[in-house]
Amino acid sequence: MQTDNLLKQVSFIKEIDKLKYIQRKTKLFNSDRHENDAEHSWHLAMMTIVLAEHSDKPIDVLKVVKMVLIHDIVEIDAGDAFIYDAQKNHTNTDEELIAANRIFGLLPAEQAEEFIAIWKEFEEGVTDEAKFAKAMDRFEPLLQNTSNNGGTWTEFNVPYQKVYDKKKAIKNGSASIWSYAENLINESVEKGILIKKVD
Amino acid sequence: MQTDNLLKQVSFIKEIDKLKYIQRKTKLFNSDRHENDAEHSWHLAMMTIVLAEHSDKPIDVLKVVKMVLIHDIVEIDAGDAFIYDAQKNHTNTDEELIAANRIFGLLPAEQAEEFIAIWKEFEEGVTDEAKFAKAMDRFEPLLQNTSNNGGTWTEFNVPYQKVYDKKKAIKNGSASIWSYAENLINESVEKGILIKKVD
Repeated sequence: MQTDNLLKQVSFIKEIDKLKYIQRKTKLFNSDRHENDAEHSWHLAMMTIVLAEHSDKPIDVLKVVKMVLIHDIVEIDAGDAFIYDAQKNHTNTDEELIAANRIFGLLPAEQAEEFIAIWKEFEEGVTDEAKFAKAMDRFEPLLQNTSNNGGTWTEFNVPYQKVYDKKKAIKNGSASIWSYAENLINESVEKGILIKKVD
Repeated sequence: MQTDNLLKQVSFIKEIDKLKYIQRKTKLFNSDRHENDAEHSWHLAMMTIVLAEHSDKPIDVLKVVKMVLIHDIVEIDAGDAFIYDAQKNHTNTDEELIAANRIFGLLPAEQAEEFIAIWKEFEEGVTDEAKFAKAMDRFEPLLQNTSNNGGTWTEFNVPYQKVYDKKKAIKNGSASIWSYAENLINESVEKGILIKKVD
């Protein structure tokens, strides 16, 4: 049984190597080089263990770390969905669900179920763990874009209000990180790298 | 205090972005593309949560995950040390200790101490958590090299005995993973991608 499990686990470990080829729209800090999903997931896991004290609610840190480590694995099949792309729905698409079943399904049955459940919990964003994980996922590109003179906001002409609406998910996880993030957004407006549209 | 901590933590989060530029000697699975340290650390964290059941001793999984996430951060200053490079000592070099103090020292004092202690625990390899973390760190490139027709073993003419001596650290963490790993090494000898030197 243990050997049987190990064979399945190794085939999963090999499969997820493909996450290193999935390019995100955002770029590394002070850089022109795009970030890939594996690097992004590592950075969110580091942020989780470093920033956990700022969660407004008590959280199971290991569970949040698992969430952020696996949250983009479905993109191996479904591709990276740019958060400001109005043409595409970003959560719980059929394509992503099929991807989750295929990729996590390489694992032993019980573990596959656990990983699919954690991925769904992240996507739904209802539990305290999912809220904190989503806060990390919104906070990293905010730090990157402000280090890159606007980054994807400038590149894709994303206006202030859209950025604000997406970033305010940080507030659901941490009041103190949101306070810091809101300041960064306001500074970006003052510097002219984030534009308030006048209707 | 919380705001003061957050400022220090954000500066650490920005600094460790540099791990994404540290190239390893090993390459991705079935690939000519070198792996970087952030991707490698993500993969080890995934392997830890997937393979934890194979640890011979009960382990604190979150602690092992922290170890593998941070184990290469010192390489931002000290550079990647190739495991089969006989000219260079790989563990607890002065250079790495200075790097650990500088980089983890960006964090609030208590957290800096925790991270330096975890990094040292990994390097020493004595606790059950460190043994399992080291097993993961040896197992990933074994899987990569066997997928790449010998990979760095072939590229740098590393003989069987040297590979075996490094890989047997896996045995200290998990008998079942070592049994699988030993089979892979023996198969590599049979295929001629790993050479037994005759004196």
